Amino acid sequence: MDLPNNTIDRVCRIFGCLESLEERQVDFVSSKDLAQAIGTTNDTIRKDISLLGVTGYTRKGYSVVSLKKELGQTLKLDKKRKACIVGLGRLGTALLDYERFKQDGFEIVAGFDNSINKLERIKTHIDVFAISEMENIIAQKSIELGIITVPANNAQEVADELIKAGVSGILNFSPEKIVVPKEIIYLDMDFTSALRFIAARFITNKLRKSRVA
Amino acid sequence: MDLPNNTIDRVCRIFGCLESLEERQVDFVSSKDLAQAIGTTNDTIRKDISLLGVTGYTRKGYSVVSLKKELGQTLKLDKKRKACIVGLGRLGTALLDYERFKQDGFEIVAGFDNSINKLERIKTHIDVFAISEMENIIAQKSIELGIITVPANNAQEVADELIKAGVSGILNFSPEKIVVPKEIIYLDMDFTSALRFIAARFITNKLRKSRVA
Repeated sequence: MDLPNNTIDRVCRIFGCLESLEERQVDFVSSKDLAQAIGTTNDTIRKDISLLGVTGYTRKGYSVVSLKKELGQTLKLDKKRKACIVGLGRLGTALLDYERFKQDGFEIVAGFDNSINKLERIKTHIDVFAISEMENIIAQKSIELGIITVPANNAQEVADELIKAGVSGILNFSPEKIVVPKEIIYLDMDFTSALRFIAARFITNKLRKSRVA
Repeated sequence: MDLPNNTIDRVCRIFGCLESLEERQVDFVSSKDLAQAIGTTNDTIRKDISLLGVTGYTRKGYSVVSLKKELGQTLKLDKKRKACIVGLGRLGTALLDYERFKQDGFEIVAGFDNSINKLERIKTHIDVFAISEMENIIAQKSIELGIITVPANNAQEVADELIKAGVSGILNFSPEKIVVPKEIIYLDMDFTSALRFIAARFITNKLRKSRVA
């Protein structure tokens, strides 16, 4: 199955919607409502879901429970995965105890930092280690995902060490772009890009409003 | 100019690339390199840039400085914008002092929280206020963007208050989806979705590798 990244992105967000619908005990959802929730068209939703080989659209819509189950199985989102956080500043420690991760199948099993001071003072129930122990711990705990929260100028170095230690995926919170080999799955969590994306839409939104008026 | 969200998203990321190229004093960049940096095709980059009415592709590629300037002017990314953060837990305080925001044209000018205790103890050079003062402060400081870092069960309430107070855009870090009127630009910064997006690509990546083998 060779899915375009855009489809994978949307299906992950559909999965998130289904999860919150399930929590609210909603039984059925239309493709239109899913489309609205993730900001795309009805047709795109149906196409994405059918690309995954999932059927089962009824007159009442998709069954929330079974669509979530099918999408989860197809993309292996139902598999529990272990992650670690490198860089225990304020952002890193905030993520260390971010409750949704575990609930959503991602378990943070280790935190790393170079500062002995930080490692000693930190208040968390997650095990924390010096960065020099990264390679051992990642192998020992079978950690698949590395989350980078170090300052920009250390991000590439940390990414290289994570990859050497054997992670398959990296989520980068540092504002610095990093370079990774093709087989590593990598995503930037770039706060400025997010604000820019909002600000850039102000202009098109305002143009649209003035055209309607 | 009625641009698709995907184009706006890509152009914002192109803008970010150009910014880091400019910092590294690179003069020219090819559409191919830009495509690789943001994970799309050469054709898509050229189409996006031409949709914005920007020309100027030379034999050496685009001029980094002038492409950045043109894209910035077209999407008004060169305009400085004021933002506030609601919810001063660990994530909120980490974002309060996130240095890249100001450098990238987004100035955090206020933080809000309901806990007097947090407001008194917080160490930051940004002004912090009780949530009850939000409406006044947002109007007084002409704040356009609201960043939500409160717990999930307060997110919708805070969003409603931000909108009532007059912000035009919301960046939501809480794991709860919120509902906003059509004229408000809204983006979820969903950490779990990001990890899911990486994990979901493991499977397609592995299939691709096994097919090649």
